[in-house]
Amino acid sequence: MKNFRDLPTPSLVLDLERFEANLEKMSRFVAERGVALRPHAKTHKCVQIGRRQVAQGAIGICVATIAEAEVLSGAGIGGLLITSELVGEPKVSRFINVLKSKPDTMLVVDNAENVAHLQDSLRQAGLYASVLIDLDVGQNRTGVKPGKPAHALAVTVDRSPNLRLEGICAYAGHLAHVKGFDNRRQASRAAIQQALETRESLRRDGHHVPILTGGSTGTYNIDSEMEDITEIQPGSYVFMDVEYRRIGGSAGDVYEDFAPALCVLATVVHSSPGKAIVDAGLKAFATDRPFGPEPLSLKGVKYEFAGDEHGRLIIESPSEPIRLGDKHRFIIPHTDPTVNLYGRIHCIRGEEVVDVWPIMERAGGYF
Amino acid sequence: MKNFRDLPTPSLVLDLERFEANLEKMSRFVAERGVALRPHAKTHKCVQIGRRQVAQGAIGICVATIAEAEVLSGAGIGGLLITSELVGEPKVSRFINVLKSKPDTMLVVDNAENVAHLQDSLRQAGLYASVLIDLDVGQNRTGVKPGKPAHALAVTVDRSPNLRLEGICAYAGHLAHVKGFDNRRQASRAAIQQALETRESLRRDGHHVPILTGGSTGTYNIDSEMEDITEIQPGSYVFMDVEYRRIGGSAGDVYEDFAPALCVLATVVHSSPGKAIVDAGLKAFATDRPFGPEPLSLKGVKYEFAGDEHGRLIIESPSEPIRLGDKHRFIIPHTDPTVNLYGRIHCIRGEEVVDVWPIMERAGGYF
Repeated sequence: MKNFRDLPTPSLVLDLERFEANLEKMSRFVAERGVALRPHAKTHKCVQIGRRQVAQGAIGICVATIAEAEVLSGAGIGGLLITSELVGEPKVSRFINVLKSKPDTMLVVDNAENVAHLQDSLRQAGLYASVLIDLDVGQNRTGVKPGKPAHALAVTVDRSPNLRLEGICAYAGHLAHVKGFDNRRQASRAAIQQALETRESLRRDGHHVPILTGGSTGTYNIDSEMEDITEIQPGSYVFMDVEYRRIGGSAGDVYEDFAPALCVLATVVHSSPGKAIVDAGLKAFATDRPFGPEPLSLKGVKYEFAGDEHGRLIIESPSEPIRLGDKHRFIIPHTDPTVNLYGRIHCIRGEEVVDVWPIMERAGGYF
Repeated sequence: MKNFRDLPTPSLVLDLERFEANLEKMSRFVAERGVALRPHAKTHKCVQIGRRQVAQGAIGICVATIAEAEVLSGAGIGGLLITSELVGEPKVSRFINVLKSKPDTMLVVDNAENVAHLQDSLRQAGLYASVLIDLDVGQNRTGVKPGKPAHALAVTVDRSPNLRLEGICAYAGHLAHVKGFDNRRQASRAAIQQALETRESLRRDGHHVPILTGGSTGTYNIDSEMEDITEIQPGSYVFMDVEYRRIGGSAGDVYEDFAPALCVLATVVHSSPGKAIVDAGLKAFATDRPFGPEPLSLKGVKYEFAGDEHGRLIIESPSEPIRLGDKHRFIIPHTDPTVNLYGRIHCIRGEEVVDVWPIMERAGGYF
């Protein structure tokens, strides 16, 4: 079998032992806590991982785009929740097609005009769909505000004969990375509290709102403390990244509830005094965070971006000699948009490549 | 035929009229200036565009990765220059394979150990390759320093019977975006001067250095003023981006030598007072620059990133009403790593989609 150091670079390498431990830990956690798990596929965009999550007890999978829903439903995975509004054509028609094969696919909504479009298309197709109200609990992105706007939308959905209101999606993505466990806990509880109150008042008005979903990898053990949360939707826990490691955990400065399992493998393609250049740059890592990749095992070295195809290693006190042609693994700054740069994940046990899993096509939403 | 507003979003849309004008302008420029053009494919990663560049007089195509060389040579395009060092395996073996179909493929080198590896592999395959010395004229990335290091490497190449020294590659990528034409001219001339001197002294020592290549979209008309520059390798001029528009041209504050031809098309998926959300975020635009996308025609609106799948439009004094489901085009902050996020380019004339061109697989270097 092939050693991972023989792979072309840059490439994604997944340590299966760590990955499986991450899956297992989340699975055990939700079982003990008595909350359901519908993990988010926007992190991995990978059928093989979705299947493993379901096999380990997930009730379904969250997706961010209609393309992700198409691929996962096409692979036989059910219980999908589309967590971004699908507005306009061709998105609504593609949603109708997914529903035909997986009638339990749910979708979030935040706008009456969009609800009317969905209702028309469903009626024409003779289909029914379950929807969740996307509640803006502070992220200032999509979603309706708690209170009156949420109530008005619930009424609109209830008046749409081909739509069935099933609950609320309250994803506080802006709080997933609050530093320090106690700070994060306080902020997330305040956000989720708005969702609990909205759900309670919708119930009092006679609406059907059995589901309340929220929770990220940063707040899985915070949001799920609140009894009314019925399910959580963490994504990054399967791979982990530099960003999540930096937010701090309940036990210390580094968030180590889950192990860094996914890395980018790069080759040293240039070496000169105090500096080495690797073949992984802006096209190999997403750069949306204010920090770069971190070497997995090499110490005393700092990575900085050096163009589309290159990264510069500033060599301070290296833990091992850095030679031309060496291959090193780097923990990814932000996983989701980085995985989106690649076509496949190379799975390893120890040093051996034992499997290759395809990643769905890039640029969320389009095939 | 399909109107581009019916495309799935996010997607890449190329205005062919502008694109063709950009090709034509560069083509006319090099003909008048008497310099050769070997444009860079790392911008477009697209066979159809490479072919058009060659048809309009380019002497070949520059590529940044072995994968780009494989795809272009596989499509019958010759005169390839690989502008990144190919170090270690499997890169060297893949280069040997490309040479078999396109013996005129050139490669840059900056290290004697790498030269020895290439020589061994070429000897075993019974092949010969032309190489350029990659000269570091200040970018502090790959390349050997001018003077002694360059001479030492030239000697090493000349002693390698299966390698043929053909010249110098002096790409000053760090100066491509210097603001203000005069500043840029001064900085680039100083950098290129080092290459001229190195070439002259290599010549005096009896080395064969007919080629001197350099020049970006930012310096195509600067570097080519220097008589000893034999060819230029601009990439972004075919598409243009926000970054290049901001560097200023010889005629004003906005660099308008070439027209913005490539955009990302996005749908308004949420609308609330003062704000709209579009379905193009961190997975639809590379974020390596400190500014975001700019609407192509919509005015009085500012884009900010709002997560993997979303961008937030801050609506100040919009030039037209912004309604749910509207589709808008955005000029890309930095083209090369953004094109790398997509699988295809939709070509339009007016509003009509007339062609779809595939982009090579993502994560430079690997199939």
